[in-house]
Formats: sequence, structure tokens, C-alpha cells
Amino acid sequence: MKSFAVILSGCGVYDGSEIHEAVLTMLALDNNQCQYEIFAPDIPQYSAKNHLTGQDMPEDRNVLIESARIARGKIQSLDKLVQDDFDGIVFPGGFGVAKNLCSYAFDGVDCIVNAEVDRVIKEFHSAHKPIGGLCIAPVLLAKVLVDIEVTIGRDDNTASNIKQMGAKHIESKHGIAVVDEKNKVVTAPCYMLDAGLSQIYSDTEAVVRAMLKLC
Amino acid sequence: MKSFAVILSGCGVYDGSEIHEAVLTMLALDNNQCQYEIFAPDIPQYSAKNHLTGQDMPEDRNVLIESARIARGKIQSLDKLVQDDFDGIVFPGGFGVAKNLCSYAFDGVDCIVNAEVDRVIKEFHSAHKPIGGLCIAPVLLAKVLVDIEVTIGRDDNTASNIKQMGAKHIESKHGIAVVDEKNKVVTAPCYMLDAGLSQIYSDTEAVVRAMLKLC
Repeated sequence: MKSFAVILSGCGVYDGSEIHEAVLTMLALDNNQCQYEIFAPDIPQYSAKNHLTGQDMPEDRNVLIESARIARGKIQSLDKLVQDDFDGIVFPGGFGVAKNLCSYAFDGVDCIVNAEVDRVIKEFHSAHKPIGGLCIAPVLLAKVLVDIEVTIGRDDNTASNIKQMGAKHIESKHGIAVVDEKNKVVTAPCYMLDAGLSQIYSDTEAVVRAMLKLC
Repeated sequence: MKSFAVILSGCGVYDGSEIHEAVLTMLALDNNQCQYEIFAPDIPQYSAKNHLTGQDMPEDRNVLIESARIARGKIQSLDKLVQDDFDGIVFPGGFGVAKNLCSYAFDGVDCIVNAEVDRVIKEFHSAHKPIGGLCIAPVLLAKVLVDIEVTIGRDDNTASNIKQMGAKHIESKHGIAVVDEKNKVVTAPCYMLDAGLSQIYSDTEAVVRAMLKLC
């Protein structure tokens, strides 16, 4: 049975992990007879957003503690992740990827990547293990790994940023994972394109199945 | 195309809606060609729980605002729910049901039900439209509707409380919905029993399919 690390960035599309993508990644792993463990960095959230109004909330929240909501408490700090323990790693999307795991939401192509996030991506890449990215997470992978092929669907601005980072962007649609076989990087658009839950699941399952083929 | 109201109670198993059950209810509705709209009461959360430690957090959160995380902002206050607009209603589980929608977590069989929650359950029941309940939500339905048949799996203490409320408890397992055809109440255990994501989905899909047959 293969085992994957799932990396969260909070709990909620506007300040953390996109919840549907996170849960449907876990469902796709379970449906494909994979085990998984969940990790998130133990750092302050960049901000807390009121998801009803889109406004900032005057609160300090923590990425690991809020991610624990999606994980039902079964989560570890990202600095505890040992690459040897897993066959692959996957990053669901959400603004938390671009605000907490790196600073892409504010700094664009010049974004800074959290040191632990940078470490684990490079360790899995060096070990030739598959790395999955959903929604906006391919931008993070492009920033760290540079010369890779990824998709964020067909958003021109983000695709242009990915090229400026030194990566190649492949247009895509729901249900098909873009696979960089050389680098074992597997990505799919999820909510970067309009989607219902069935389409999000088709994307997470496509990513999981492609990662399993690369194991 | 049938349309359902999904009622949330926050965002996170220990103080709100159980996130997996909520998302997989939406997936089951989408996979079965149903539309849905999401509602939650605009009230203070009973408490905010740190899902990493299980401890109370010194924060005031709002049920509607936190539920909006699961809904990606597409949510309305429960007092806006008009029964005529929907073919059925479904309640995912989580401690939010027993802490925010009613006071079962503290008051047991003598619990008080939120007035809007009480209103919508009674309106759908009077209109002979299906009412779904996952995990602990059947306790809420038993408290409001009294003489119904429900399941919470096979937890003796909770089953005993359901009987004390005047309802009948049917033991069950994953993937099978317990259907009270006369009252059009459909329930399944979800995380009241040990479960992986595939089993939770099998329960939400069983509930959705049984509700559709009753429409």
C-alpha cells in the first residue's frame, strides 16, 4: 500500500487550504487504496478572512491549528515530515498556498517560499518521488523546482508568471492531470477553472492515479 | 433537477460541521444531478475548539461566518430558507449540530433546539419532503420530530437517548441509509462509526439516493 503526505495551508479557500480540494484529495487517496498523513507548517496565518464578506477579520490564527479542522486533529507540524516515510507528496490549493506556504499572492514571481515547504518539495524531487499540486499549488512547485511542466488550467496571468519563474505551462481542463514524467510532477486545475464538486473529484483522482503510476 | 438545502453548523468536527461529511454530501448531490444551496444560522458558536489539542480557544466565532469556509462564501443565513424552494433538506454531522443547532452536547435528552432549525425541520416534515441526517444529526431530528425512525450506527448511549426522546433507533452500518418512509427521514452513521473517506462517501451517497426516491 502506497503512502502519501498531504500538505495543508489552513482551512478555507481565502486564507487557507481550499476545503473541497483537500477533502477530495483524501477521498481519491482512500478510493485508490493509499494511506496518507497530513502536515501543515506551524506558523501564523498571513490573515484571517471572513468567507461570507471577503473582509479581513481582526484575528490571529495559526496554519497548523486551523488545518487540523480538515484533518480531524490527525495532523503533524511540517518540520516532522520525513521524506523516507512516504511514496509521494501532494499539495491541495487555496489562497493559503499563495499566502502561507509562499508569498505569491503579494510578491508574484519574486515570492518567498516557507523554508520547510521548500525543503520537503526539494527532498521528494531529489528522491524521484511524485509531487502533486492542485489549483494554485503548481505555482509553488514552479517557484521551487523551476524547470518543470505544470498546469493551472488556462489563466493567462498566472500562466505567464509560471513562465517567468522558468517553468512551462500546459493548458488543461478538468479530469486530466498534466504529468511531467521527468520530474514526476503531477498537476490539475481544480478551482482555477469553474467547477462543481464532481469535477474537483475528477481532478484529484486524476492526480492520485498519475502519481501512483510514477511511484 | 431536484434541489436540496444543506444546513451547516460551523467548520470543524469539534465545534462545527464535520467537514468531510459536509463536503461529501455536496459531492453526492452533485454526482446525483442535484442542485443545492447552503445555509447556517447566524448565531455565535458555542465555543471555538483547537482541533490539534482539543482545548477551548479564547475566541468568539460565528456559525454562519465559519460555515462560509466550507461553502466558499456561497451561503445564506438560515432564516432566509424558504421551504417551497427545495425538494428536501440535509444535515451533515459534527459537534456543531449538538452545540450550535441544539444543546444536546450539554443537556442530553432535555436539549433546546435553535428556533430556526426547529422551524425548517418542521416545515419540510409538514410538506412531506425528505429530511436527511448524518452522524449525530439524527438526534436533532428525533428531538424535533419525536416519533420517527433513525440511526446513529450502534452507539448504545446515544441510541438510548434517541429512545428517551420518543424515537426509534435502528442499528446500521456504513453504506446503508435507514429510511423512515412514513416521515421521509433518511439517516446514516458516518463518523458515529470508525470510517475512512470512502465509507463516509458511501453513507452520504446512500442518504442522497434514498432522499431522491422519496421526492
